[in-house]
Amino acid sequence: MALLHETHFRTVENLVFEWARAIDENRVEAICDLLAPGGRYTVQSRFNADRGLPLALIDAHSPAQLRDRIKAMRQANIYEPQHYRHLVSGVQIVAAEGLPDGVLALRSNFAVVRTMERDGEMQLFASGQCQDLVDVGGARPCFRERRLLLDSRAVETLLVIPL
Amino acid sequence: MALLHETHFRTVENLVFEWARAIDENRVEAICDLLAPGGRYTVQSRFNADRGLPLALIDAHSPAQLRDRIKAMRQANIYEPQHYRHLVSGVQIVAAEGLPDGVLALRSNFAVVRTMERDGEMQLFASGQCQDLVDVGGARPCFRERRLLLDSRAVETLLVIPL
Amino acid sequence: MALLHETHFRTVENLVFEWARAIDENRVEAICDLLAPGGRYTVQSRFNADRGLPLALIDAHSPAQLRDRIKAMRQANIYEPQHYRHLVSGVQIVAAEGLPDGVLALRSNFAVVRTMERDGEMQLFASGQCQDLVDVGGARPCFRERRLLLDSRAVETLLVIPL
Repeated sequence: MALLHETHFRTVENLVFEWARAIDENRVEAICDLLAPGGRYTVQSRFNADRGLPLALIDAHSPAQLRDRIKAMRQANIYEPQHYRHLVSGVQIVAAEGLPDGVLALRSNFAVVRTMERDGEMQLFASGQCQDLVDVGGARPCFRERRLLLDSRAVETLLVIPL
Repeated sequence: MALLHETHFRTVENLVFEWARAIDENRVEAICDLLAPGGRYTVQSRFNADRGLPLALIDAHSPAQLRDRIKAMRQANIYEPQHYRHLVSGVQIVAAEGLPDGVLALRSNFAVVRTMERDGEMQLFASGQCQDLVDVGGARPCFRERRLLLDSRAVETLLVIPL
Repeated sequence: MALLHETHFRTVENLVFEWARAIDENRVEAICDLLAPGGRYTVQSRFNADRGLPLALIDAHSPAQLRDRIKAMRQANIYEPQHYRHLVSGVQIVAAEGLPDGVLALRSNFAVVRTMERDGEMQLFASGQCQDLVDVGGARPCFRERRLLLDSRAVETLLVIPL
């Protein structure tokens, strides 16, 4: 059971919450600023991850790549207007040893409720685990790596907004 | 990213949790004691809030008004017996500057699972964001303002118990 | 409103999160190590608890009994492969007075999303309240008592994996 680096706990918990809130408040672009230069953001099904299959729904290798993806969502994609609501739970620092100085490994659970704007239909859209590497050594905390594992493969065709 | 007034974080988080637990444990009246004298409690759809429409499902301007509303629920309303279960997530202090001394602005997400007593039917009933002004300067922390924005308008006709 | 033993808050919150994560990561056996020798773990419907009915879905009086139950799940039971995802919310220390030294009473809410492995069907499976007695006086924190009250009786026939 990890209580490592307890002094940083609130900092990293807040970083995880900030990511979720930026998306929920339709300020999706702001998540790019939470990703370290050269940081990686991946969304993949648990099914593929367990089998070592590389296929991912999103796999951005830098803030710039993530920004492109979001721009595509804003400009090009055709989809029904919808909102996310994140529920994040169980943020834990699970390791610091063996990692570069100032880097912490995190786990947390998430679920996303999706509401369609037109008719207000509300649905439990996605759930899964976040596996993060967070850098707390710099001026501002940021994600070195953010890997989201989806519990269900059923969401795969429907993901428009990043999670 | 706000880490303002970190010393008060647990106090305000606990206040938010206390509100939810009072409702879930069917001690709904207890939320009135968490509202400051002259405090305001509003439940409104995101749809209306985004458009500046004033219509709200609940809009109490004092603990007394909120108490009346709850009394009506207990005595007058006819509704099928039901329980709420709150999931609250992502409590953040987002501002203190520009606010009166001892007042903090909060954000958090919530979802409510509703269970019908008769047949045990369980449903994701509501989700949304809490926008709070909390006073931590007095003897006990309390809400100056508690504004709940619902993601879906579909809940509007069904709200009996306060959220 | 309880802010008792605030110094232990993160310790007990992390203990609650650790239990959930062990189950979600399919390391269910690990929860036995979080239960004190002679500790009790009970899962019961709110309906039965409110009426003082003793019937429980799970009622283990020691880590060994819980281990047996999990072994049965792994070896004997026939059920469709499935995963849980816990959302835990609102952890509060509600009492320490009147309890043995080093023991704290906790409350928290939980919801569990269940995903079937075959077709990826995802469902809000269970929700309820955790009523815990936690021992923080020893070398490692552990549960003296862990009592889960389910909001719905509908889950009763379906519970295979401990919650």
